[in-house]
Order: sequence, then C-alpha cells, then structure tokens
Amino acid sequence: MNEKELRDFFASIKKPSPAAEGEDFCFAAAYLDHGHIYGMTAGLAAAGGKLALVVDRDPERGRALAEKYGAKYSPSFDDIFEDRRIRLVASAAIPSERGPLGCEVMRRGLDYFTDKAPFTTLAQLEEAWRVSRGTGRHYFVNYSERLGSECALLAGYLIRAGVIGRVVNVIGTGPHRLNAATRPAWFFEREKTGGILIDIGSHQVEQFLYYADCDEAKVVSSAVGNFSHPEYPGFDDFGDMRLAAANGATGYHRVDWFTPDGLSTWGDGRCFIEGTEGFIELRKFSDLTRGRGDRLFLVNGEGEFSVDARGTTGFPFFSDLIRDSMEGTDRAMPAAHAFAAARLSLIAQRDAANLTPRNEHGA
Amino acid sequence: MNEKELRDFFASIKKPSPAAEGEDFCFAAAYLDHGHIYGMTAGLAAAGGKLALVVDRDPERGRALAEKYGAKYSPSFDDIFEDRRIRLVASAAIPSERGPLGCEVMRRGLDYFTDKAPFTTLAQLEEAWRVSRGTGRHYFVNYSERLGSECALLAGYLIRAGVIGRVVNVIGTGPHRLNAATRPAWFFEREKTGGILIDIGSHQVEQFLYYADCDEAKVVSSAVGNFSHPEYPGFDDFGDMRLAAANGATGYHRVDWFTPDGLSTWGDGRCFIEGTEGFIELRKFSDLTRGRGDRLFLVNGEGEFSVDARGTTGFPFFSDLIRDSMEGTDRAMPAAHAFAAARLSLIAQRDAANLTPRNEHGA
Repeated sequence: MNEKELRDFFASIKKPSPAAEGEDFCFAAAYLDHGHIYGMTAGLAAAGGKLALVVDRDPERGRALAEKYGAKYSPSFDDIFEDRRIRLVASAAIPSERGPLGCEVMRRGLDYFTDKAPFTTLAQLEEAWRVSRGTGRHYFVNYSERLGSECALLAGYLIRAGVIGRVVNVIGTGPHRLNAATRPAWFFEREKTGGILIDIGSHQVEQFLYYADCDEAKVVSSAVGNFSHPEYPGFDDFGDMRLAAANGATGYHRVDWFTPDGLSTWGDGRCFIEGTEGFIELRKFSDLTRGRGDRLFLVNGEGEFSVDARGTTGFPFFSDLIRDSMEGTDRAMPAAHAFAAARLSLIAQRDAANLTPRNEHGA
Repeated sequence: MNEKELRDFFASIKKPSPAAEGEDFCFAAAYLDHGHIYGMTAGLAAAGGKLALVVDRDPERGRALAEKYGAKYSPSFDDIFEDRRIRLVASAAIPSERGPLGCEVMRRGLDYFTDKAPFTTLAQLEEAWRVSRGTGRHYFVNYSERLGSECALLAGYLIRAGVIGRVVNVIGTGPHRLNAATRPAWFFEREKTGGILIDIGSHQVEQFLYYADCDEAKVVSSAVGNFSHPEYPGFDDFGDMRLAAANGATGYHRVDWFTPDGLSTWGDGRCFIEGTEGFIELRKFSDLTRGRGDRLFLVNGEGEFSVDARGTTGFPFFSDLIRDSMEGTDRAMPAAHAFAAARLSLIAQRDAANLTPRNEHGA
C-alpha cells in the first residue's frame, strides 16, 4: 500500500454505530473495585446501552456512578435480578472474585462483562467455561489495551488486510506507573490479583494471539520478580514471557510497574508487529517527547508512514458486545479467544521463574 | 538527572584520542569477505593505526583497500609475518574461518581483530580461548552494533552512572535488509555462517550482557525459522532468544532479514533498556518518518529527553584496542565478555526451536 491506498483504506473503515437505544439494552454495573469499570460503562453507554443499576459495597462510589447515568444504586447484588430489563452485568471486582461472580451471573441467566484479568486461577477459568457452555450465557472480557486503543485496532485491520505479509513476531511492552499510595490493599496481595502476568500480562497475551491470528499457543518461558518493592512481598513489579503460536509466530511481552515520574502519562506501552513484508509499531499512550500516543507507524515496501489513529476506527467492541448479548452471536470477541488469552497468562504466571534478588543486602 | 545535569554529563564525556602515530601501530587487513572490514580499518586508522598490508584472495578488492590507505597488497597470508612492524591482523573472513584464522595469527605472535560473529562452533571458541591464554595474544571482536553506535555507547555511560537505577530488562531488535542479489554464496550456507543467532544475534547478546553488566547468563529459550526464503534452505530469515543473567536481568532479542524496501535505511535496530528508576530507548539507525537515527530517549524521574547522540562519545573502542595491543591491557573489551557473548549466541543457535513452516503448500 502506498500513501494514497492507505488513505483509501482508512476511509473505507466502517465506524461503529449504536447497537441499541432507550431501554433496548439495560445493564448493571456491579463492584467498582478497579477504575476500569468507568471506561467499560462509558463504552457500553456510547454504544447505546443503558446503565440501569449500580451495585457496590461502597455507597458513595456506587451512588456517584449511578447518578452520572441516571441509574439506581443498590447495595444488594440480588436487586440486579429483580429488574427484568437488565441483560448484562458489567464488573470490575477484585480479580480473584471475578470468575465466581461471573458464574453466578450466568447461572442466574444474564451475560457478564468483566474487566481483565478475568480469572486468577485455572480452576476459575474451567468453571466459567463450563457454566458459559451450559447456560449459553456470555462471559465477555475487557482487554482494554487493544479494544480501547484505536491504533491497536487499526493495526489489526491492516494486518488482516495483508499489509505486512505473514506475522512472524509480536513484541509488547506494558509498563505501568505504580502510584502505590492510591492503590487499595488487595492490589498488593497475590491471592487477590494472581500476579503481574495475569493482571497486566493478560492484555499482552490477548494482543499476541490476535495479531498472530492463532489462539493455539504455548508459554515457552516466563518470569516474575520484585526488584524494588520489598515492602510489598506479595507483589511482582516485573514480569516477562515468551510465547509461541502453533502457526510459527513468536511473541515476547514485558510488563512492569516502573514507569518513572518524568513520563507524561501512565506508561509507554508499545507493540511491535513484524511481518514478512513490513512491520508496524504502536506507540499507544505516548510518542516520547512528542506528545500523546495513539500513533501507528507502518513500514512496508512503499515507504514509512506515521498515522495518528485517533478517529480512524472508533471502538466497535462495545456495539458488537451489545449485539452479541441481544442476538446470541459471538462477534465482539470469540469466547475461545478471550479464554485462551486468560489461560496462557495464568500458565505463564504459574510457571514463572522468580527473578527477585535475594540476600543482596544480607537479608 | 534533569536537563542541565544531563548536558553537564554529556559535556564531561572524554572523547577518544589517537593512541598511536606514524608507524607506532601497524596492522594488516586480511580477508575482506564481509564489508565490515572497511569500518574496522577506518576505525583503527582514525585511532592512529597504520594499515601496512592487505591480504585477500581477490586482488582487485585487496588492491583497492591497500591503495586507499597507502598500504601494500599481497595474495599471501604469510607475508604478514614477514613485516616485523605489523602487530595485529584485522579480518572479516567467511565466519566459519574466523576462529581457525585467529588461532593461527595468535600462534604466530600477533593480535587478532575479527568481525563478529567471531566463531561458528563452540569448539572454535574453546580453541581460541586456549590459544589466547597460552600465547598471551588478544582475540578482539568487532561487535559494531554497540561499539560503532554513539547512542549505544552513550546508553552505557548513562547506565553506569546509575541514571535509570538497576537494569532489569533489555529488549533488542536487529532487523536487516537482505539484498539477496548482492550476497555471496556463503552467506546462505549454514556451515559457513553458523545461522542467524550467531551471525547477527551475537551483537544482541553482547549488548544484553553489557547493559545488564553481567557476563554470567544463560539462554532460556531460542528459535530460528525460514518463513519466506524457501529458495535458501540453509538460511534463517528469523531468530529470537530470551536470556537471563545471573543478577536477575532478563533479555529478549529478535533478529531477522525482513527489512522492507520502504525503510530509509538497512534496518530499524532498536534497544529498550528498562531500569527500576527510568528507561532508555535507542533508535540506532532510523527515527521512523523523522530521519536518521543515532537517537537516545531517556525517561527518568525528571522528564522525557530526546538526545541526538552524534558527537557525544566518539568511538573509543579503537584507541583502547590499539593501547591494549601495545601494552598488553584489556580496556577495549574484556576477552571474557567478548567470548561470553559469542558462547551464548552459539548456544542459542544450537538449541533453537525450528519455526520454519512445513507442508503449508502441500510440500
């Protein structure tokens, strides 16, 4: 593709349209333990969903969200099932509670939309798969580092159009700012989060499988470590993993909590996708020293291209999810894909070598 | 470091000065099979070395280099040892000949300076180590992707000064343009090159060990593949490896021959060094869509900094090498480090999984 063909390609991308209106698609937001719930709610609302009820243990936090969307607040989870308009429960609970919560939601007849990571144990994953198959209900996952990033979505469209040939390798980095003082206690407890390769690593695995276009993959090797936060012994501040897909593509993914204060945003997340006929780089949240990210670089046989991805794709995941929920389809993200990403990140964490320095200070 | 402190730091870097003049340090260039010999020769000459003799099987190629530096040409390798002024033999022979050639040079009393990769088998490496120890002669290696890159050298100085804290991870990519028509036949023969992780991978390993400041490391996993050059069955067009240093730092390195025609240079080589208190990105040869590379990005507690590295460090390797050769010291690059990088790349290649797609087209 040359510059004109690229422009034509971008112009041909169909922007998402609302999938519902009024009370066609009512949903509840239950458990606001992670701030991602606000993006999930906003995405569903923009796609035509109607937030009808907010349930949370913290009345102040719950009421504030309810008020914003003209919804009700209740401290009682059971109230969700009293309101027959509600079809789906969106949730960003403490990670270790997400799987069991989703199973309860599906067993009681509703679809479930959870923040990532969707599970903290393989047993939770197996149970959720079984319940979803048994009930016919959806277990959607908010892998926001791709689904909520236009440059990441645009990369997928270009790859699927063959613009870089066969994808042979994906490198993804997901550094995050810790902001320790703002984090709840559970954030530092391994049994609550599962660990770094599950928590922020699951985004990475999802992107690898998606760009490599292959859900059959294995964890070749992985590691986690706590290099500079001994005050939180249950916490990983670093993790990495090497993945191999059955189609020959390999991936490497590094996540950490080391974003320094001098960075203009929370993390310099990048993704490098190497193809046999070109490559793509995503600068998701920052274009270092040159301002904000959401920028895609493409190099192919024709030249080097820098694309401001804002406004190119919109966020079709949310409209698709609403349609899937209403029509029983599987467009937003096939469950097999969402579960494969979760499974691999759980395995990567389970089998991770421990890099934590020992005895350096005579401890 | 804030902007002023950084500027002061750069100003404090001592530029290399010539280590010899006149005929203080005469050297020969023997076997010009890889074009890197020209950079090696130029580096030595700029550092005060005097090219006295060129030996090559191709008289035209040999004479052209000799003429440029006012040196003699001879088809006979033995002539090197007739000229008592010559202290060192610089060489970019076919990779599988580099080790044996170096052993002969050292046994006959001279130092040796080879293009990377310095060996294609572990047996060659062991023999060269033994001969070097036994004769007291140097076996220098031209790991040019760090030693010949000012941004890469500058990164080392910043890291050693503690600017990003403890190095926990290094990601390096070394994509190259194939230019198949310009390559000699040996380039595509595995027994001549050793394979991609040895050939261009050795640069990567050297950088990992250097930035992680630890020569004790292991190959955790590695892979090679031939994705789109079935006409060259002995050729790897892709390779990657994950490394782990004994101090807890991990590395991932990807090399390939997929640089597309649209890139403004031969390869978009990058290096990402993650520390506990900041990070560095090197855009070595290109700053995509923004012109040439040799650019270092530093993000620390104080801000985001973009540094044009040209002129900041010079190339001290060559002056140091000349002094080492004249004084029997080990300043340019400790032999243990050069050999550790070679050993790991040999092991990575030997143990690599094969990603080459099979039977996709009914073959």
